[in-house]
Amino acid sequence: MSEPIEFWFDFASGYAYLSAERFAALAARCGRRVLWRPYLLGAVFKISGGRPATEAPIKAAYYHRDIARSARLLGLPLRFPATAPINPVRAARTAYWCEAHAPEHMAAVCHALLQAHWGQGRDITTAEVCAEIAAEICGQPAAYIAADSQSPGIKDRLRAVTDEGMAKGAFGSPFMFVDGEPFWGGDRLEQVERWLQTGGW
Amino acid sequence: MSEPIEFWFDFASGYAYLSAERFAALAARCGRRVLWRPYLLGAVFKISGGRPATEAPIKAAYYHRDIARSARLLGLPLRFPATAPINPVRAARTAYWCEAHAPEHMAAVCHALLQAHWGQGRDITTAEVCAEIAAEICGQPAAYIAADSQSPGIKDRLRAVTDEGMAKGAFGSPFMFVDGEPFWGGDRLEQVERWLQTGGW
Repeated sequence: MSEPIEFWFDFASGYAYLSAERFAALAARCGRRVLWRPYLLGAVFKISGGRPATEAPIKAAYYHRDIARSARLLGLPLRFPATAPINPVRAARTAYWCEAHAPEHMAAVCHALLQAHWGQGRDITTAEVCAEIAAEICGQPAAYIAADSQSPGIKDRLRAVTDEGMAKGAFGSPFMFVDGEPFWGGDRLEQVERWLQTGGW
Repeated sequence: MSEPIEFWFDFASGYAYLSAERFAALAARCGRRVLWRPYLLGAVFKISGGRPATEAPIKAAYYHRDIARSARLLGLPLRFPATAPINPVRAARTAYWCEAHAPEHMAAVCHALLQAHWGQGRDITTAEVCAEIAAEICGQPAAYIAADSQSPGIKDRLRAVTDEGMAKGAFGSPFMFVDGEPFWGGDRLEQVERWLQTGGW
């Protein structure tokens, strides 16, 4: 069986929200599984010298406009966070809790967290809210998920995955790998699909 | 008559090369003229905190790969500059010399300079080479263009245009304006065309 294709993203990234479901659909069309890899862009930015688009001089206003315009074109609801970028750590840990304890639900929880935040404007910076969202999908008690998702093992897992992403060369969100080939940005979904269909060019 | 649509770019930008002719074709399909606006991203970066992609840690290797991969997909020749990013000042001044003295040829000269550098690997950092390229198109003596394109009036013009671009909110290459709506990146060509066809969404 072929390896999964990889979708690295930060929950604080609007472009991750705009791309995640399309990436899932693309993978399904091409008969490939997806490895969902939430990671912490803040850690990457410390090395790359990047910074959140919403904090960059001149660019910030454009990003707001571009994300809103792209969401309208895609027909996706958008509630731009009042205080962007949010801290994505609790959401990412919740995702890796699912990976450890309910892996069959990890994809759905990732989509639900992105959707809750970017589509509905919910605050996903607390373990409690993230756990509520995961609990509805996983069918386990929210209080248990809230506590266990912030345990040392899960914290270490998120740190290790973030380090792995950086080591592989991921530096943005979304950042995708298809059989080792890196693609950065929701703008590259068409190239990703073509790469899958043709085996590269 | 409707206003032209605007293509702001830096001659040191591979994405400008990959997008310029497609933007011209898109404008022709939509019955719009193009205002070609070479400007100096280096001046923008001083304010925006950006930097050339080819100089950014982690990202540089990806950019090389992405530009090469995109060029192959588009069927465009590519000779990645040995010392990227180049200084785009002489090329940009040559373009504004055309604007002042042979405006009907400015678009062709912009395309030819991008193509010479990115498609053929020619060094376009000297006034002499840029003037040779413009002379073939404009039919005026290369020596005259080389000297006159570096005159104070042309230097001032390029500075003023760069300031105008920053004031309008341009911060990348290519950066496009369609009836006041800003679009950043060759990845946005499809949205630009749709915007022109629909009047926005």
